[in-house]
Amino acid sequence: MQGTLREHCGLFGIYDKSKLGSIASTVYYGLFALQHRGQESAGIAVNRDREITLIKDTGLVSDVFKRYDLSALEGEFAIGHTCANADAKDDVTNAQPVTVKYHKGHLTVAHNGNIANAKALRDALESKGAIFHSTNNPAEIICHLIARARLHTATIEEAVAKVVPLLKGSFSLLIMSPCKLIALRDPLGLRPLCIGKIGDSILFSSESCGLETVGATFERDLKAGEMVVVTPDEIYSDERFCSACSALCIFEHIYLARPDSVVDGQSVNEARINAGKLLARQNPVDADLVIGVPDSGVSSAIGYATESGIPYGVGLIKNRYIGRTFIQPTQAMRERSVALKLNALDSNVKGKRIVMVDDSIVRGTTLKNIVKLIKKAGAKEVHVRISSPQFLYPCYFGTDIPDRDQLACNRYTVEQLRQNLDADSLSFLELDSVEQIAPCSKIGFCKACFDGKYPCAVDDTVDESLID
Amino acid sequence: MQGTLREHCGLFGIYDKSKLGSIASTVYYGLFALQHRGQESAGIAVNRDREITLIKDTGLVSDVFKRYDLSALEGEFAIGHTCANADAKDDVTNAQPVTVKYHKGHLTVAHNGNIANAKALRDALESKGAIFHSTNNPAEIICHLIARARLHTATIEEAVAKVVPLLKGSFSLLIMSPCKLIALRDPLGLRPLCIGKIGDSILFSSESCGLETVGATFERDLKAGEMVVVTPDEIYSDERFCSACSALCIFEHIYLARPDSVVDGQSVNEARINAGKLLARQNPVDADLVIGVPDSGVSSAIGYATESGIPYGVGLIKNRYIGRTFIQPTQAMRERSVALKLNALDSNVKGKRIVMVDDSIVRGTTLKNIVKLIKKAGAKEVHVRISSPQFLYPCYFGTDIPDRDQLACNRYTVEQLRQNLDADSLSFLELDSVEQIAPCSKIGFCKACFDGKYPCAVDDTVDESLID
Amino acid sequence: MQGTLREHCGLFGIYDKSKLGSIASTVYYGLFALQHRGQESAGIAVNRDREITLIKDTGLVSDVFKRYDLSALEGEFAIGHTCANADAKDDVTNAQPVTVKYHKGHLTVAHNGNIANAKALRDALESKGAIFHSTNNPAEIICHLIARARLHTATIEEAVAKVVPLLKGSFSLLIMSPCKLIALRDPLGLRPLCIGKIGDSILFSSESCGLETVGATFERDLKAGEMVVVTPDEIYSDERFCSACSALCIFEHIYLARPDSVVDGQSVNEARINAGKLLARQNPVDADLVIGVPDSGVSSAIGYATESGIPYGVGLIKNRYIGRTFIQPTQAMRERSVALKLNALDSNVKGKRIVMVDDSIVRGTTLKNIVKLIKKAGAKEVHVRISSPQFLYPCYFGTDIPDRDQLACNRYTVEQLRQNLDADSLSFLELDSVEQIAPCSKIGFCKACFDGKYPCAVDDTVDESLID
Amino acid sequence: MQGTLREHCGLFGIYDKSKLGSIASTVYYGLFALQHRGQESAGIAVNRDREITLIKDTGLVSDVFKRYDLSALEGEFAIGHTCANADAKDDVTNAQPVTVKYHKGHLTVAHNGNIANAKALRDALESKGAIFHSTNNPAEIICHLIARARLHTATIEEAVAKVVPLLKGSFSLLIMSPCKLIALRDPLGLRPLCIGKIGDSILFSSESCGLETVGATFERDLKAGEMVVVTPDEIYSDERFCSACSALCIFEHIYLARPDSVVDGQSVNEARINAGKLLARQNPVDADLVIGVPDSGVSSAIGYATESGIPYGVGLIKNRYIGRTFIQPTQAMRERSVALKLNALDSNVKGKRIVMVDDSIVRGTTLKNIVKLIKKAGAKEVHVRISSPQFLYPCYFGTDIPDRDQLACNRYTVEQLRQNLDADSLSFLELDSVEQIAPCSKIGFCKACFDGKYPCAVDDTVDESLID
Repeated sequence: MQGTLREHCGLFGIYDKSKLGSIASTVYYGLFALQHRGQESAGIAVNRDREITLIKDTGLVSDVFKRYDLSALEGEFAIGHTCANADAKDDVTNAQPVTVKYHKGHLTVAHNGNIANAKALRDALESKGAIFHSTNNPAEIICHLIARARLHTATIEEAVAKVVPLLKGSFSLLIMSPCKLIALRDPLGLRPLCIGKIGDSILFSSESCGLETVGATFERDLKAGEMVVVTPDEIYSDERFCSACSALCIFEHIYLARPDSVVDGQSVNEARINAGKLLARQNPVDADLVIGVPDSGVSSAIGYATESGIPYGVGLIKNRYIGRTFIQPTQAMRERSVALKLNALDSNVKGKRIVMVDDSIVRGTTLKNIVKLIKKAGAKEVHVRISSPQFLYPCYFGTDIPDRDQLACNRYTVEQLRQNLDADSLSFLELDSVEQIAPCSKIGFCKACFDGKYPCAVDDTVDESLID
Repeated sequence: MQGTLREHCGLFGIYDKSKLGSIASTVYYGLFALQHRGQESAGIAVNRDREITLIKDTGLVSDVFKRYDLSALEGEFAIGHTCANADAKDDVTNAQPVTVKYHKGHLTVAHNGNIANAKALRDALESKGAIFHSTNNPAEIICHLIARARLHTATIEEAVAKVVPLLKGSFSLLIMSPCKLIALRDPLGLRPLCIGKIGDSILFSSESCGLETVGATFERDLKAGEMVVVTPDEIYSDERFCSACSALCIFEHIYLARPDSVVDGQSVNEARINAGKLLARQNPVDADLVIGVPDSGVSSAIGYATESGIPYGVGLIKNRYIGRTFIQPTQAMRERSVALKLNALDSNVKGKRIVMVDDSIVRGTTLKNIVKLIKKAGAKEVHVRISSPQFLYPCYFGTDIPDRDQLACNRYTVEQLRQNLDADSLSFLELDSVEQIAPCSKIGFCKACFDGKYPCAVDDTVDESLID
Repeated sequence: MQGTLREHCGLFGIYDKSKLGSIASTVYYGLFALQHRGQESAGIAVNRDREITLIKDTGLVSDVFKRYDLSALEGEFAIGHTCANADAKDDVTNAQPVTVKYHKGHLTVAHNGNIANAKALRDALESKGAIFHSTNNPAEIICHLIARARLHTATIEEAVAKVVPLLKGSFSLLIMSPCKLIALRDPLGLRPLCIGKIGDSILFSSESCGLETVGATFERDLKAGEMVVVTPDEIYSDERFCSACSALCIFEHIYLARPDSVVDGQSVNEARINAGKLLARQNPVDADLVIGVPDSGVSSAIGYATESGIPYGVGLIKNRYIGRTFIQPTQAMRERSVALKLNALDSNVKGKRIVMVDDSIVRGTTLKNIVKLIKKAGAKEVHVRISSPQFLYPCYFGTDIPDRDQLACNRYTVEQLRQNLDADSLSFLELDSVEQIAPCSKIGFCKACFDGKYPCAVDDTVDESLID
Repeated sequence: MQGTLREHCGLFGIYDKSKLGSIASTVYYGLFALQHRGQESAGIAVNRDREITLIKDTGLVSDVFKRYDLSALEGEFAIGHTCANADAKDDVTNAQPVTVKYHKGHLTVAHNGNIANAKALRDALESKGAIFHSTNNPAEIICHLIARARLHTATIEEAVAKVVPLLKGSFSLLIMSPCKLIALRDPLGLRPLCIGKIGDSILFSSESCGLETVGATFERDLKAGEMVVVTPDEIYSDERFCSACSALCIFEHIYLARPDSVVDGQSVNEARINAGKLLARQNPVDADLVIGVPDSGVSSAIGYATESGIPYGVGLIKNRYIGRTFIQPTQAMRERSVALKLNALDSNVKGKRIVMVDDSIVRGTTLKNIVKLIKKAGAKEVHVRISSPQFLYPCYFGTDIPDRDQLACNRYTVEQLRQNLDADSLSFLELDSVEQIAPCSKIGFCKACFDGKYPCAVDDTVDESLID
């Protein structure tokens, strides 16, 4: 899965009821643990005595905040965001959180997911005279909607509740008003969001690994559709949008989430091992070594090795120092750009029949270069095993793939694709078995990218009568 | 081996006889592949028409050069350096390469290793009136020595040859005069250096992975004591300092080098797998899972698993985004600082008896925290296996460990250390078998840190009569 | 007048009908000439093929744009802004121009002046659900108003015309829609704005010195209330808001504008000389030398010298290198902070009776230190002459003086103030004669700070029925 | 004098015997007052407990130190330098002070002037094996010489005394050893250096304005050839190099020094007024207004006006915001580049016969553009008066003019030059009278640029036997 699932951001928040202090630093460490969910921009907003301080910029968490003395930035509650939106790479107006001033003071929103009807919402707002500073920032749209809804509601949470029906798509949200912190997961539960505690302080994180990093106890995942409201006096849950059908994006288990996270009851690492085991049963091959494409293919490769009895080994070394600021390869190096990131471990693969496990095929170009690397290192055979089904349908809830023509699995048969990759065999996880990788999951899955069955309407429309 | 072997820098050079162009970019990619050998500073010096352009600064390769248009920096030959010298972290005078102007034009030196008699050499030079801009930069000392030797020698290579007997310790060197590029490996061969080709262009790299990254063919390692001189007209080898006894630092295989490199005929990855296998034979234990401490413990863990028949698995997830600019942990987070870098994979280790393989124990503090992490994640037992013998003696050829008292293996018995780590068992690779990990190596090893047998005198003295 | 008239920004725009090219550079040079009107932030917005590129940041013109290749930023029309708003010093959301996206594409506004009913407008907009990104940015308010007005108007210029009656206070504006550039001066003409030409290209500048710097021919000042609309096909003037009474801020002549500018027919330099001459007639004194407080007191001092026959000389040397980034004085230096900026010219003032001319007294603290400097340098007497009347009333059209209590002339009698300054005499330009300093001016003046007669209502209210 | 006298640096030092504290800040303010002497780089070196901290970089004083907390940089003594050396603009190795480590600890040197035999000294040192980090930095040469001399001398001051006879040219020096601060003025006294006090703390400054800015009392100028040594216990003067003939560069009065400085007893401002008066007597003309080219022509213009009875006025406005980072003019603007810096004051010059006073003519190109500006503004006649004689001979003590061919006065007769400038008349101060401008000066002058009589041999040679 080579850099294509772009809309998977990271959220982290805290309402520091136990007065632990170091609030901005805690959010910083939490975001740092969620850095894999978005490397384009980062931001932290802290509420102190009803005043907001917002720091955000393009770049990695460790770059954005190095100029600031976060230890001096105290407050009662705070939220942070790491962003994978490509439009936030160079344009800070598209970074999050978004903080605005409106008739009730200030309002801060951070969003993870993809609003499928974003354009329709924006058009509807503009037709009422709204102005936008960003070119593509769902949090700014949500700010507009909340500000308008708040005109006719008694509380911020009621305003948020008026906005939820307007949003089509995936959205985990953290929202701050001058004295409340609200966490919300969309009715389908497409993106994860969990809650933790340190003493009486309440924390929210996109993944459980964020809680663990800052020393918080994991309490539970938010239910699909649940809104948790934290005020100075209480914390309560509003379940009006919860429903029976739920649909966590299965790519969270396949690729997006960190393996040490547990999402909706399912260990991500175990899901990947399970995928590898299923793959071995469904697509066995006579071989000498199983290797994984780092980082997301490794757990599945170990699963494949365990099930098949073929030894597991390291076949590819990843250069850990590739960063945002890496200088663009020269023409001469462009065709070698995979070489900058990955190198084959000749001593392990030479003369061997290799099973190479990767998580998915979107465009397929990088994978072709990797097969080439392994063959050049002396592998006799390379059998590619993909720990997910064929990616056939566009995703409206979190990728930037514009149309089906760019999906390799749509353009080629498996045999054509195998030839294209110059692999000795190629097979995918069977579509029927994909949910078996997550037997412990407490909620259902969206697998629309594999089967085309979208869990909700994805048309870019809006019922304007609902906008105040 | 947590951040303690500091003097292992990376060298990369090219004499572009085939006029490939993009010379600074090629060195940049080469240094990038050698980034693991030093993260404190980086520099590139390019010779064009007898003029030198030098860019160097503190920081990572990808940070140092991002302000520059390397594609516009052309020339006939060039060298680069990544530095692990802690004194270069904040003080650019200690960064390398060092370029000076002297009676024969300009002279540029880049050094990998540790000059044991650096202080004596500096004192001797100062007693002749020499001035220094750096506080701790072996390349500046070597520039002084060459400049003086050159007064009474016909060529730059003869001047270098006069300097070699003055240097005690480890030194791989790349040296540029206005029209020659010289590569040199110390008579014991303590640090690696190899030579490669693209067409007629000659390349030098500390490790073979650097050559592979830029698309060069690996030709051979320099012999211990060999000096290779590249001029516009020829390339020749001077073997006057080569001798029978050679002593590559065995820590290159255990920890320093990248696993995909082949050093003196021995694959680094295979050496680590071998160490793991030997360890399994010497120190078997009844357990459920073998895990490695990333990154250097992974190959040995796979070796241990293979030999023992116990399954291999991933037990620790490393945060890949930790960088130089990471904000210092707050007091509250300090004790959790291991948590920022590593997280246990609960789903893999819970309820299991774990064999955890790490490469070495120097101070032992980080390892203690890692055992704690694994136990907290639910491991029933943690058996620590170290893929090298006990680190008992200070190293004068490449570490910054000031004295023996700081070495955990010196302060404690193995049983005390086990209790200290709260491990269920602890064992090391046997001293007798350490050379068995590298059966393909064409040269001998320095294992002084394990057995105290130093391959050369390490006193900080100099025969001043040899300095011109 | 020590750093207190904060809302005097600089505007510069061009519609490049002659395709001169280098459009961003031309605006850059224009802003550079207007740098004296605002040093807190700077910005340039360029329209190319209906797409806007906006660069803005806190800092001086020469600092903000140094990272950018302006020569590559081409387009059909563009506007720029230098900002004196103290709230833009650290917060880029308060910098200008402001560019937003709305139902008709994009909209860019740059403003010079002070909107007296800004808070009421903001409240009214918020009560309709509007959200704000800035804390204090009149251009964002105006964007909101135009976007709403545009819902019910056929053209952008009609939308602007609907907004004008809502704005109380001073406002020169440059506004860009995807294909039009609009320049507007408020109905009173409180702030200047003029129009120039290079070939068929139309330029706008706050002062004529901006036109001269870029080689444009000065055409004329906009009339008070005039709106000039430049489209691809035509340029026309809309005078519906022009009225008989006009009220240019007289401080433009006294302090704000550059002496080489001609504002509404009156040379700024001549106005200052005239003020000096009047002062000499009204407040003669027996003295040896006339000096001016640089920079704005110099022309008036020459006028005083000419009229009185007392020789003119330089008495104070100003350090030209004081900038935004100047390190805050230590405690020991704080009382000497005037010494960092000004030094007395002992050789000129020693033993002499000095007439020292300054432009105005607001708080009076700096002036006191200057008198001290001159006396310490050996002046026998120091006679302070102020080239404007007593500053007695707050300004609602361009200063940040919150209330009358901070105005020295309100708190003290002239005699008390003289003692406070330790001057040997102190006198001001007579109120009756202040308009005589600008006999060539084609429009009237606002002198409310001297006489309390405000040219329009300054209450912070808004007729909400006018907002769409 | 348009940006051509490049080697006039600024020195500032303090030995803080009274323990005033804030030592780095004091040097910072001192350098700030001397900023006019060099804008290419700046540096401060502070000695604390025999340890040196050095901060230096390319750029203005206010830019170089803004990243540092100078208030935390304390010590017993310190020196600073502002540099006008064009080779220090981009290459920090050519910036000063230079700090080196040598056999007696550390040594820091800051230099103002021009060492005429720098190349010969460098060659001689290189022939003894010396290496250089800078390409053009006299302070590094002096460090080498002192380090060698110190081998055979009992004290640092004796080492300095051994070096003085080796140096040909101009040199004011500040030198720090681990416990001494030495100030030295060359035997001819070509560059200024003065001494001041705050309590018992001793301060040195290139000009008296530096002392005044930090609140120090001016004590006296160093004599030509005097060396002042400050130790923890005493302060003493060594006059062994003082001689009868002295030769302050007369351009210090004409152009280089700040008008509020007093150099060797002569007020710089009075010298300029005197030059203007002499000029008026020698070259009278019937005219309506006298103007000066800012900044250095203003005082002379006032002198001319006083003597001639023609009124003085401001004719040119200088943009004060031009800085190092100013973006290079586009092709279209290049011919208008004078317009970016200067604008004519039309209201003052229109229809008038103008006397325009400038300090000198080197290449003459800028002056030609200024005459054009004034004529375009409507002046009927422009009579150029130069307040120094014709610049005919190259200067070896402080300019970067390579040869006589580039000096306009050498290439053209006065009449040709007048035509070239398109001036109505042109005249210079008479050579015989140039010393009359500084009647109070306690020392003689070097006027070699006017009369070719160099005060010492300027050949680029060195008696190598004197180098240890």
